[in-house]
Amino acid sequence: MALRVQKFGGTSVADITHIRNVAKRVIETYDGGDNIVVVLSAMAGVTNNLISMAKEASKAPDKRELDVLLATGEQTTAAVLAIILKSMGYKAISLLGFQAGILTDTTPGKARIVDIETKRMEKLLEDRHILVVAGFQGHNTHGDITTLGRGGSDTTAVAIAAALKADVCEIFTDVDGVYTTDPRICSKAKKIDMISYEEMLEMAILGAKVLQIRSVEFAKKYNVPLHVRSSFNKEEGTMVINETEDMESVVVAGVTCDMNEARITLKRVPDQPGISAKIFTPLAKEKITVDMIIQNTRVGGETDLSFTVTKNDFEKAFAISKAVAKEIGAEDVLTADEEIAKVSVIGLGMKSHSGVAATMFQTLADENINIRLISTSEIRISCIIKAKYAELAVRALHTAFGLDKKDQ
Amino acid sequence: MALRVQKFGGTSVADITHIRNVAKRVIETYDGGDNIVVVLSAMAGVTNNLISMAKEASKAPDKRELDVLLATGEQTTAAVLAIILKSMGYKAISLLGFQAGILTDTTPGKARIVDIETKRMEKLLEDRHILVVAGFQGHNTHGDITTLGRGGSDTTAVAIAAALKADVCEIFTDVDGVYTTDPRICSKAKKIDMISYEEMLEMAILGAKVLQIRSVEFAKKYNVPLHVRSSFNKEEGTMVINETEDMESVVVAGVTCDMNEARITLKRVPDQPGISAKIFTPLAKEKITVDMIIQNTRVGGETDLSFTVTKNDFEKAFAISKAVAKEIGAEDVLTADEEIAKVSVIGLGMKSHSGVAATMFQTLADENINIRLISTSEIRISCIIKAKYAELAVRALHTAFGLDKKDQ
Repeated sequence: MALRVQKFGGTSVADITHIRNVAKRVIETYDGGDNIVVVLSAMAGVTNNLISMAKEASKAPDKRELDVLLATGEQTTAAVLAIILKSMGYKAISLLGFQAGILTDTTPGKARIVDIETKRMEKLLEDRHILVVAGFQGHNTHGDITTLGRGGSDTTAVAIAAALKADVCEIFTDVDGVYTTDPRICSKAKKIDMISYEEMLEMAILGAKVLQIRSVEFAKKYNVPLHVRSSFNKEEGTMVINETEDMESVVVAGVTCDMNEARITLKRVPDQPGISAKIFTPLAKEKITVDMIIQNTRVGGETDLSFTVTKNDFEKAFAISKAVAKEIGAEDVLTADEEIAKVSVIGLGMKSHSGVAATMFQTLADENINIRLISTSEIRISCIIKAKYAELAVRALHTAFGLDKKDQ
Repeated sequence: MALRVQKFGGTSVADITHIRNVAKRVIETYDGGDNIVVVLSAMAGVTNNLISMAKEASKAPDKRELDVLLATGEQTTAAVLAIILKSMGYKAISLLGFQAGILTDTTPGKARIVDIETKRMEKLLEDRHILVVAGFQGHNTHGDITTLGRGGSDTTAVAIAAALKADVCEIFTDVDGVYTTDPRICSKAKKIDMISYEEMLEMAILGAKVLQIRSVEFAKKYNVPLHVRSSFNKEEGTMVINETEDMESVVVAGVTCDMNEARITLKRVPDQPGISAKIFTPLAKEKITVDMIIQNTRVGGETDLSFTVTKNDFEKAFAISKAVAKEIGAEDVLTADEEIAKVSVIGLGMKSHSGVAATMFQTLADENINIRLISTSEIRISCIIKAKYAELAVRALHTAFGLDKKDQ
């Protein structure tokens, strides 16, 4: 008998009919003998409606109270699924965040899970109850309700799977799994059967929306096997697991494209020690995450410094940069009018295969695409290019790294 | 500095605009120096929508889970009011049932409050927080969410007022207070300035919907002064308090009319010991509350037995009565085709004034209204009459007992 955690997201619980289908899927597994913990998101659109309501109440709604409001979304779906399962004659029980023992820190709106008190869940599972846990929410040591941030239900599912030492955490979604790239951009995108946590993490960070970043971090940390699969069919999806030897043979596992960044350039920055700190400390203080940074030293001791931030943070970051530029005596702050895109290739195989960067740059060059900024990690290379070339670049890279004919 | 509990119901929190008005009203009192606990119902219509959703999920939704679902209604309004108060610069905090320490028994759907752990509320009040408590909900010793039944927010408010020894519990509603009778039936109905718990209880039981019965019982038990008043104006409403000597001088405080009963008659029941138990035990087992009972013994040892139940329970009660009638050898079970109404006069003064019943019967006789059943308590006389005479009877009794010219 296995223990499975099954997470169903927004479109899978869009309405009562969909929730009824979730119930059917859950009891098929349960009837096969496995124990099940179901984790649910709010119905599609509900969280956005609640946010609108809060915004109507106040332009900047208090975060503790916003959490109380948002938590009603998952509470609703959990109660409804439990009602359906019980009406079908099954032992089921809904558990809100605090009832499932999900203790978080005190940061409202994006709380981190610090502990899960599993006693109640374990007892109910021993008694063959189907547990229906409201995702996205927990409670802190003050007894306040907290939420885990967008996509937090993934994190709830993975954290519970880790705490209960579940055999697998199944993330049911509206796609068949993780793809080599976005199928809407590249028709030759293929479903990936198996991917490492590290690669999945890079892909999630770079805009593959199928899994929330923190849920992958959690799965990696606690070695929870994730199975990303469709809630609308029975096909096997993508297994996200620990790195295996096999995996390194795949040089590039996927290509991603992120259109959500904007670039800021400080012209003619004096090339002095400590100048970077002067620029980036004020940004960090405002919790603005700087993604890519590039610095070109000119002849004569001045430097042009470019960096990217998310579009959300852009206006704030631009204003701060203007002030800093004045202070440090930079010539000007520029922002490119053009929209930019960050295309990335990700693969564990980069660790052992050389020439990936060269292939990437050559491929883009062959398409006459200029590279504005480059950044790399051990298993990733990212290039900033003009947004209008994004789709072309993704398709070219997908072909160049042999993903078109990928057949795992 | 006084401590006030202020409860606002469905129409007072119909939407964000209304909740904003509640906020203004609350802070006026707060700015005057008083401490405030606000208790809120769900927005108008929300509870019914949630029940519809549950009914779509299952014809007979599990009661524990229904409570989890319904509790979201009050959670929403509490969070929204707290958001508004905080955005206006006030120290406010929402508290759900379990956070306010409201411990109930384990009966889902109509749980009874067994204790209120006031420590958290007291600490927050000392610190001059405005507490915004989600009404209608509590938690039981298993850590499950429970609800208190329809109108349960009144009970929440009164129970909190009792636990915190508040100076007053203000019930804000869409009417100006408690009336001598239903103003929609009798244009001469007058607002009552002051009424005893006992009288209010009888009036609530008999269909005056302004206060939930259990909240009045609670107020009586713990001697909590209730102030029923309008949320749309600043007029003084009705004070519901302990009996005073003055009150007995008012023979009849109010006239009520309840159209929600139906009558069942068992014809020619054998007049034997134990026969009543045989009839009413099966009804009690099905949790059907029998209101009025009348029995006429005929010459020859048989009896006609009539009783009333609420219209909700009628079909079930009728089926049970049919079965019992067969078993005990009664001739038949009849139900009058006609609709019935129960008109009642209520007044503490009845304890010391005689002739109230005589006046009531004479008044109805003068209007040619036949009385079908009569029941009495120490401070109430009720008559069952044909429904079509209900309004006429109410107006005639209102005049006969001097309420038309009531001027307190």
